Formats: sequence, C-alpha cells, structure tokens
Amino acid sequence: MSGHAPGLWVTFEGGDGSGKTTQAALLEEWLGGLGRTVRRTREPGGTEVGVLVRDIVLHHRGEISPRAEALLYAADRAQHIDTLVRPALARGEVVIQDRYLDSSVAYQGAGRVLDATEVRDLSLWATGGVLPDVTVLLDLDPDTARRRLDAADKPFDRLEAERADFHERVRAAYLDLAAAEPGRFVVVDAGRPSAEIAAAIRDRIAALL
Amino acid sequence: MSGHAPGLWVTFEGGDGSGKTTQAALLEEWLGGLGRTVRRTREPGGTEVGVLVRDIVLHHRGEISPRAEALLYAADRAQHIDTLVRPALARGEVVIQDRYLDSSVAYQGAGRVLDATEVRDLSLWATGGVLPDVTVLLDLDPDTARRRLDAADKPFDRLEAERADFHERVRAAYLDLAAAEPGRFVVVDAGRPSAEIAAAIRDRIAALL
Repeated sequence: MSGHAPGLWVTFEGGDGSGKTTQAALLEEWLGGLGRTVRRTREPGGTEVGVLVRDIVLHHRGEISPRAEALLYAADRAQHIDTLVRPALARGEVVIQDRYLDSSVAYQGAGRVLDATEVRDLSLWATGGVLPDVTVLLDLDPDTARRRLDAADKPFDRLEAERADFHERVRAAYLDLAAAEPGRFVVVDAGRPSAEIAAAIRDRIAALL
Repeated sequence: MSGHAPGLWVTFEGGDGSGKTTQAALLEEWLGGLGRTVRRTREPGGTEVGVLVRDIVLHHRGEISPRAEALLYAADRAQHIDTLVRPALARGEVVIQDRYLDSSVAYQGAGRVLDATEVRDLSLWATGGVLPDVTVLLDLDPDTARRRLDAADKPFDRLEAERADFHERVRAAYLDLAAAEPGRFVVVDAGRPSAEIAAAIRDRIAALL
C-alpha cells in the first residue's frame, strides 16, 4: 500500500556504516537527472522539532528509559511524516529517506527490551499507518561496518557504541522484516562495490516510475 | 490501584492559574511537618530529558503536529515515571506531582483533535499503567483563571495562549475524568480561599497515611 499519492517514497535501512548516505545520494542524482524533484530527508532529525529530538536521543549523557526512547523516535516520526513527507508526496515529489519505522523495530524492539510488535504499533499510530513504496535494506555484517566506521574516524553516538552482539541482533531483525514484506523491501549486499549496489537499486525504482 | 509501594503518590490537575503550585507547596509543608520525605515534581519537565522535551512542547515557535505533541508528552512521562517517580515511591517517599496523564487526556484529547481514549492508552503504555493514589483536581472557571494569570504578568506559553473555548473544553474534560474515577479524584473548588482548599486536600490525604 502506501496511503499517499502521487509521489514516490523510498526509505533506506541498515546499520551505521552500511552506506545509506552514499546510496541515497547516488539515487538522488539519478532521479534528478530524470527530471524528478527529489527531497532527501532522514529520521530522526528531518524537521526542526526532529533535530531537537535527535539531539536528545543520540547525545543525552544520562539514562533514557527504553519506553521514553521509543516515544521520542515516534514523536520525531509523527512530526516528520505530518509536516514534511506527506506534503512532499502530495506535490508529486520523490522522498528519499534515511531510516523509518523499520529502524525502530530493529533497534528498539529486537535489539533492546521492548516488544517489537508494540514498537511497530507505536510508529504506525504516530504516522497514521503510511508505508514507503520501496525500502532498501543495505545488509552488511557488523564487523565490516565497524571497520568502515573506524576508518571514518568519527566520534560514536550512543547507538554506534553498543556491543557487537547488539548489532548482530539488529541485522537479523532487519532480515526478518524484509522476509515478511518482500513486496516493499529490496535487500542489497552492502559489501559489494558501490556502483553495483546503486545499479541494483535503480533497477527496482525504475520499475515504479 | 497504583501498582507501587510503599510510598504515597499525589498528582495535581487543573488549568493554569488554578493554584496547583500553591497547593502543592502547602501539602509538601504539611507532610514534611509530619516527618514524611516529600518529592515535588512535575510533568512535563520533571527530569533532565523532560526539561528538554518540555522546552520543545511549550516553546517551539513552529508547527507541532498533534500526534508529535502527544508523543513528546508521553516520552517525558515514561522517563519521569521510570527514572524518578517509581524509585521515590519504592523508597517510601511521598511524590507530589504537578500534572500527569489526566492533563494529556484533557488537553490533547478533549481539547484538541486526537481521540481521548488513544491518548490515554498512549500514556498508559508509556508508564506501564501506574496511577496515583490521589489526584487533586483544582476546578476553576477559565475567566477567573485568566484574570489570575493576567495579574501575574508572566508571558504566556503555547497552551496558555489558546482561546477561551479551548479552556472551557479542558475544564469539562477534567470534570468528566473525575466523575469516572471518584475513588482516585478529589475535586476542589479552586475559587475558595487558599487555606480552605488546603484543608480539604489534607483531609483526603490524612485518610491514606
């Protein structure tokens, strides 16, 4: 489904270091070349309110309770969908989005202590139940992702600093989500060369244009 | 119910200008005189994370979508209950709290565009369903509340600046909530002298000590 029209909505999912930013940029460039108006965005932090929420979730130094964290992500999501994504799709634009509710289910549900179904229901309540036309899952083993992040030499945020077994559980949760919704997901091996990945993504999107 | 022990949990509800802060201070003073350890707190903003969330909800200048606002209040609430209220009650303290889920139901549900039952369910999910031992509703007609706020000469936040009919709907929603749970609520006419109100509240609390 999707519950929107007439634009096209693509989300990117995967662990940090899986290449979401690179692939989103390549897809934007290709779609722009086809004459489409593209809106690049992300969760958390795609709106002014979302930037404030993202700062709390990723950079607060004290304890954040699991339910508070899930609700903050959902608040960011509600604001993002209501004030940015829906209006852009209504104007016929392509929305290319870094992370959506699958991130919450994989990270908060499977990766932590909350029930994955409750987390998904919370996100669906936040957004009125809209789902993307395509979700690209960039699948990569956590060791490779870690080496890429180390090479980039950026400071780690709260989620990136979690232990390796957490990232393994997130990866498994993502693959389960993709298997459950093959019509929405396209799973790409993110260990392949960037140009090959971009071509695989373009093939899937081209079928929808 | 309450789902907690062995402390005592009292929440204050009512519109701005109804005297919640004054009455909470008088109750704290009385309970302190009885030798109880009292923790005064509030929602939103009772925790470090809550202060950040409160600042977004009350002072953000742009649009906040109704669902995003409800989720931000719920996030503040989850953090507050998990990290402050439950631990204090477990230590046997008295928690005196300015606003809880009844505020969300009255303001977000009845006063705005969301379904009151959904808003209540969201708060209950956020907190694991715990409810106060006593909720004091300071009932006051909005005109009187407005004159008190004008006299105090403070700048209005986003909710205070809503129109009069909004505050009438909030008042009616509060009274409905109190009627539905007479065992938890004590409704006090906030137009009476402060000392009389304090005495009425003490009578109710004394029965629980």
